[in-house]
Amino acid sequence: MAHLLNIASTTKTFKVAVVGVGLVGGEFIKQLLAFPQPSPFRLVSLSSSKSTIFAPDGLHVSVSSWKDALASSREKPDLQFLLRELASLVKPGQEVVLVDNTSSNDVAALYPQFLKLGVNIITPNKKAFSSELSLYENILAASLESGAKFLNEATVGAGLPIISTLKDLIATGDTVTKIEGVFSGTMSYIFNEFSTGKEGGLSFSSVVSIARDKGYTEPHPADDLNGADVARKLTILSRFIPPLSSALPAGYQSVSTKSLIPSELEGIDSGDEFIKRLPEFDAQFDQLRAEASKEGKVLRYAGVIDVATGTIKADLEKYPVTHPFATALGGSDNIIMFHTERYGARPLVVLGAGAGAAVTAMGVMSDLFKLV
Amino acid sequence: MAHLLNIASTTKTFKVAVVGVGLVGGEFIKQLLAFPQPSPFRLVSLSSSKSTIFAPDGLHVSVSSWKDALASSREKPDLQFLLRELASLVKPGQEVVLVDNTSSNDVAALYPQFLKLGVNIITPNKKAFSSELSLYENILAASLESGAKFLNEATVGAGLPIISTLKDLIATGDTVTKIEGVFSGTMSYIFNEFSTGKEGGLSFSSVVSIARDKGYTEPHPADDLNGADVARKLTILSRFIPPLSSALPAGYQSVSTKSLIPSELEGIDSGDEFIKRLPEFDAQFDQLRAEASKEGKVLRYAGVIDVATGTIKADLEKYPVTHPFATALGGSDNIIMFHTERYGARPLVVLGAGAGAAVTAMGVMSDLFKLV
Ligand SMILES: NC(=O)c1ccc[n+]([C@@H]2O[C@H](COP(=O)([O-])OP(=O)(O)OC[C@H]3O[C@@H](n4cnc5c(N)ncnc54)[C@H](OP(=O)(O)O)[C@@H]3O)[C@@H](O)[C@H]2O)c1
Ligand SMILES: NC(=O)c1ccc[n+]([C@@H]2O[C@H](COP(=O)([O-])OP(=O)(O)OC[C@H]3O[C@@H](n4cnc5c(N)ncnc54)[C@H](OP(=O)(O)O)[C@@H]3O)[C@@H](O)[C@H]2O)c1
Repeated sequence: MAHLLNIASTTKTFKVAVVGVGLVGGEFIKQLLAFPQPSPFRLVSLSSSKSTIFAPDGLHVSVSSWKDALASSREKPDLQFLLRELASLVKPGQEVVLVDNTSSNDVAALYPQFLKLGVNIITPNKKAFSSELSLYENILAASLESGAKFLNEATVGAGLPIISTLKDLIATGDTVTKIEGVFSGTMSYIFNEFSTGKEGGLSFSSVVSIARDKGYTEPHPADDLNGADVARKLTILSRFIPPLSSALPAGYQSVSTKSLIPSELEGIDSGDEFIKRLPEFDAQFDQLRAEASKEGKVLRYAGVIDVATGTIKADLEKYPVTHPFATALGGSDNIIMFHTERYGARPLVVLGAGAGAAVTAMGVMSDLFKLV
Repeated sequence: MAHLLNIASTTKTFKVAVVGVGLVGGEFIKQLLAFPQPSPFRLVSLSSSKSTIFAPDGLHVSVSSWKDALASSREKPDLQFLLRELASLVKPGQEVVLVDNTSSNDVAALYPQFLKLGVNIITPNKKAFSSELSLYENILAASLESGAKFLNEATVGAGLPIISTLKDLIATGDTVTKIEGVFSGTMSYIFNEFSTGKEGGLSFSSVVSIARDKGYTEPHPADDLNGADVARKLTILSRFIPPLSSALPAGYQSVSTKSLIPSELEGIDSGDEFIKRLPEFDAQFDQLRAEASKEGKVLRYAGVIDVATGTIKADLEKYPVTHPFATALGGSDNIIMFHTERYGARPLVVLGAGAGAAVTAMGVMSDLFKLV
């Protein structure tokens, strides 16, 4: 399979340090260790929030042994130590890569330092690219200074080719006029179930409750319903589009974002309590659904980047029942439509599961191949 | 924009020779010359079927001058000369790329020689990858021997990310179980117009005639209706999928392909004559459409690769009116669904214009970026 990507022919070695070994991290390690020999990749470090292992020439671990090896280590994770050690491995013929599979702001804040010292960053962690513009600009500057690269395909749409497609469109000289999509797998599932264009159906609170039971929402559903995840993804995409690259000074907090949390339930700390009180607001959601279906429409929580007007927003929108957001979505699919000058009236569309450990790890792994 | 792809940071030079300067070639040259300075790309040669220009250090041409420069050359195109000259430019720090924007079998047949001498190949020309397996195997072997790469994103779906997505799925260890799609923009247009799931509608011959007038078909519509274009694309994709990589010894001719040319019209040389006689067969197509709509289905000319059964076929199929092939397609869109183990019941789908010079050239250009 290596020949597919012409990876077999590389003469470089890639030293890979993985921070974050949860769902995505575990899958990524599996995919990396399954890479056919001779592999250019050497796994040199693993870190969870509790422990770390490091071996500059490569860890002696397998798909079945890495968990025990990490768990039995007494070393505490130390990002400054990792930074120094990884930097010392950077040399001609040897690339070093930090794969951040956490959702940590602390790790994200250090990207500029890693990059400046020549360590490449690959990550599904949205934090660094969707927070204040100053952090993002530091990342760009550090990458430009050292030539180390950062790749973040899996931050939007998981394994779906979203960021690579956007970059190709722009780099080949097309003009992106609008991006519109359903970017949150959780919101997708909730509204695919709640609003089908027909009258009636399950109540909003019961759909959310079922989604939570299936593990589709965060433990506290308000963390999905606040729209921040969508706002973060819109921020990440906007920053690749030249006229909008500096449009969001406070990152996702600058995005016009509709929260679906009833104001009375703001600040409830417990997910269980939140779920228990959500039925009090079913009538409001019922009314929105009824209005939509009367117009022949469905409700979808969408993200929109309108380049001409500079509008970047995450909102509950109505779409005709014949629209792809109504007809083509199922499960917790993401869908992203790229409207561009070249594609004209018929957008380029990518559709499919936008979450899940295996497909997210695939997005991370494909970034690693791009580096090669 | 260069920073998007981290191209600015490359220290290599890429010498680019373009063979074929028609619709796609012209757009590609435009995109290449528009690349912001400092550009790593040097355009060293242009060839049409009539003339050629070559300058090892780079042609002095602009978007507005290249046509005249080429037209006023008295040099005849000479692929053996080009092969020798390009091979002599291959050296450390300097990559050489042949961009084949023809549909020529003669150029395709020389890929193994170019590759063996270290010249990379980028092309939207389907011929080399969809003909006999022996040519394809020679291409693979030559690429492996020298390390020169061949990239053919634009051969399937033009600018849509189809081949890159397939390669990523396989290289990251996913198992592709089935690929199903509408691969021909012409067939897409014809059946989107002809079969909508409702009863009645325009006759088949009039839809084909309108498509021809709009320039959506080849001058001779039989060249689209024979299904060979779809069979070629299925061949190209199948060869990337490990269990099928040797499945088609005679290339597209080994694909089970339904021709829509009425047998009485086989061998008619003139497109005009073909169009004149096509109405004689409208009743047959009407009947197929009526049968489909009675079942709540539409007709689509689809390509299917079923990995488990080894089935690779291009055929006129029926799909429910709720299927994305019925609801999501318009114009001359392509749609490709990747069913894989990781994606499970909900396939990864890519949809959009699968033809047109600008988007095809974008596919070629994005391959050039991949090389960098
Ligand atoms: N899961 C998906 O479907 C999906 C899709 C797209 C993007 N993502 C993104 O992928 C990332 C990982 O997601 P996940 O689902 O794998 O999360 P997860 O299962 O919660 O795993 C997170 C991992 O990060 C570790 N960690 C946290 N802070 C750390 C620190 N400061 N130093 C070292 N390790 C630290 C945790 O350690 P412990 O094991 O010690 O707790 C855990 O191993 C997140 O950014 C998420 O947004 C996930
Ligand atoms: N157009 C699309 O939408 C599209 C989409 C996907 C893929 N493609 C593929 O892209 C390729 C180019 O398509 P196109 O639409 O640009 O075709 P085109 O307009 O007919 O251009 C073909 C070019 O190739 C030149 N040529 C032919 N044989 C040659 C030879 N032996 N040596 C040198 N030059 C030669 C022709 O020269 P003259 O100018 O002297 O005739 C012409 O410049 C084809 O393989 C096609 O299948 C096209």
